[in-house]
Amino acid sequence: MERLGTETAFAVSAEAAGIAAQGRRVYPFHLGDMNLATPSTVRKAALEALEAGKTGYCPAAGIPQLGQALADDVGRARGLDYGIDNVSIQPGGKPVIGKFILSQMNPSDAVIYPNPGYPIYESMIEFHGGVGCPYGYIDTPEGLRLDFEAIEAGLARGAKLLIYNNYHNPTSACSPPEEMQRLAALAVKHDLLVLSDEAYFDVRYEGAAASIASLPEMFHRTVILYTFSKKFAMTGWRLGAAIGPEAIIADINRLNVNDESCSNHFVQYGALGGLQGSQDEMQQILAVLVERRDAAVAGLRAIQGVEVHSPPATFYLFPKVTGLMARTGFDDVEEFRKAVLHETGVSFCGRHHFGRPLPGETDRYIRLAYSGIDVPDIEEALQVFAKWADER
Amino acid sequence: MERLGTETAFAVSAEAAGIAAQGRRVYPFHLGDMNLATPSTVRKAALEALEAGKTGYCPAAGIPQLGQALADDVGRARGLDYGIDNVSIQPGGKPVIGKFILSQMNPSDAVIYPNPGYPIYESMIEFHGGVGCPYGYIDTPEGLRLDFEAIEAGLARGAKLLIYNNYHNPTSACSPPEEMQRLAALAVKHDLLVLSDEAYFDVRYEGAAASIASLPEMFHRTVILYTFSKKFAMTGWRLGAAIGPEAIIADINRLNVNDESCSNHFVQYGALGGLQGSQDEMQQILAVLVERRDAAVAGLRAIQGVEVHSPPATFYLFPKVTGLMARTGFDDVEEFRKAVLHETGVSFCGRHHFGRPLPGETDRYIRLAYSGIDVPDIEEALQVFAKWADER
Repeated sequence: MERLGTETAFAVSAEAAGIAAQGRRVYPFHLGDMNLATPSTVRKAALEALEAGKTGYCPAAGIPQLGQALADDVGRARGLDYGIDNVSIQPGGKPVIGKFILSQMNPSDAVIYPNPGYPIYESMIEFHGGVGCPYGYIDTPEGLRLDFEAIEAGLARGAKLLIYNNYHNPTSACSPPEEMQRLAALAVKHDLLVLSDEAYFDVRYEGAAASIASLPEMFHRTVILYTFSKKFAMTGWRLGAAIGPEAIIADINRLNVNDESCSNHFVQYGALGGLQGSQDEMQQILAVLVERRDAAVAGLRAIQGVEVHSPPATFYLFPKVTGLMARTGFDDVEEFRKAVLHETGVSFCGRHHFGRPLPGETDRYIRLAYSGIDVPDIEEALQVFAKWADER
Repeated sequence: MERLGTETAFAVSAEAAGIAAQGRRVYPFHLGDMNLATPSTVRKAALEALEAGKTGYCPAAGIPQLGQALADDVGRARGLDYGIDNVSIQPGGKPVIGKFILSQMNPSDAVIYPNPGYPIYESMIEFHGGVGCPYGYIDTPEGLRLDFEAIEAGLARGAKLLIYNNYHNPTSACSPPEEMQRLAALAVKHDLLVLSDEAYFDVRYEGAAASIASLPEMFHRTVILYTFSKKFAMTGWRLGAAIGPEAIIADINRLNVNDESCSNHFVQYGALGGLQGSQDEMQQILAVLVERRDAAVAGLRAIQGVEVHSPPATFYLFPKVTGLMARTGFDDVEEFRKAVLHETGVSFCGRHHFGRPLPGETDRYIRLAYSGIDVPDIEEALQVFAKWADER
């Protein structure tokens, strides 16, 4: 258990809740939860299934109708031909991380994963006895780019597994085509198995999303982490899927039998309703999110010492605050975060909530999620933040 | 993955479904699923929560109201004083098995577990690198009793963990007070940590249910596996809990963060409605089940060569069919099971679906679940079965 990590961002939630409980105003940028309603297509189909008695067990892999619909939908969006045996329904996207690692990694295997990144990658690799090989991102004028030197270092350690999270939490990094091609070429050359965390594939405001599974020779070596949480505003429903080669999916289905039997039965009908019904409400969710992004980017850019990209996907911003911290007299991101939270109510995470900082990191970053806060509150929060910085 | 088992009973389901697909009548005694509606108190509370927008993340340990209600309810039924920090809500009862083992067992640790028993115990112990020490049951005129010789053999191997499933699947074994006391005394003497699988604690028709956690010096060494699946006919909703010492529950909550974040949010309000609302519908479920038990016991006892207890709990029967198999010319339980299924449509599991038979086992057993089949069908099925035996 000493090797098992956690999501330290939950501690920030608890801290923010404590401040709110004192009757003080909190601006919640710390958690990637959503304050938007689940589309009516999903709710209606789930209610109908519940009333129709879909309350008994279902197959460990999920109901066949949902498996087929997801194979079709995910395949169509990626130009790939998936069938029902390529899909294992899960109680969320997160279980795919642990099940991929448990089924494909042996103890002492090296695994290449992003850091900063979703903290569960590192936690599960280390808990199950693997050796984590982190790679960071390089900040460029066009956005954050994969640090291929670090990836090559992982390969030199004999890694056979790679975790890749395009449309990246926490940085919002989006690979241009040549970057994804370069990564795929390495995966093919070194015969890697890839977990492609595509939780934010459908939270894209501009251009078409791309999956590394679509690149040549990648289909048979890529497991996609799919989730209904973000696109359908279903975070608390807990439904996702692993999508990939049949043999790996069969392994993951066997883990389903052992871990939780199956995912909630009628919730799967809800998700089916979401996939097959009108997509208008999902478009509306994206329209709301992009307005928030623009408001948050504008508000942050108005603060002297903050640099931030305007990413075309995810609902996170990862501003560089090196200048702002120097200007306000902070050296430690956690102390800075706490001061801003306690003195202004503006609540966000720091880079350190997404993995142990890597050697050579000199710039300071924070992460703001805009999925759970409305535009007027975003604007007000960032004005309060700017004023705090000016007066400090 | 070679060490990971599965529930081979699912293969029986697939076989039975194949026969039904040919248009032939199948009498489903093979799976512990329920053909009874989830009580309206649960459904109503879940729907209200869904409509009220309880669709975002909730705490990894579960919503506090449900944790408190379950602590109160489970504590009251067992004469114990649980608080909210003793409860970790799970997406089913099954996840408690894996999380107990992952958090409390180190590789090469010996674990004492029942065989015949729920096959996931053995699978998870071996998958995570432990050494399984099985114990069987001894058939007596009063019912099946724990084989303490086998338990002592496990203790001699240095076991520190014990899995105990009173109101037992598949045998329906129920410990009399002195047996439970003897087991608890061993647990205390050898400083064991106990997983008490109490999935059927509330599926009891006569007398009061008892938990080993209630015995002296057991509270601090027992984790209860609780599930909403059986009592509330919620198998497909996937909701349960681990209930036990705070330090272990904290470990399990950290596994929740890593494995699936949290359980479905609005489903937890449904379960809360079930705990806090009228208990009439749950009593009605028990009334239906006990009628089925009586019909099944009577039907089985009418078959020459079958011996079966009438257990006061669970919805399983575990008849001894040694005589019937000899009479009908079978030596292998799996061949017998297949012949009955294919020639009569009566579908059940064999002892071998619940673990590798132990040395010295000479009698033959099958398992019938009556949770998913109505009384008239039970009666017809067992008449068909009896006729098949007579004519063979």
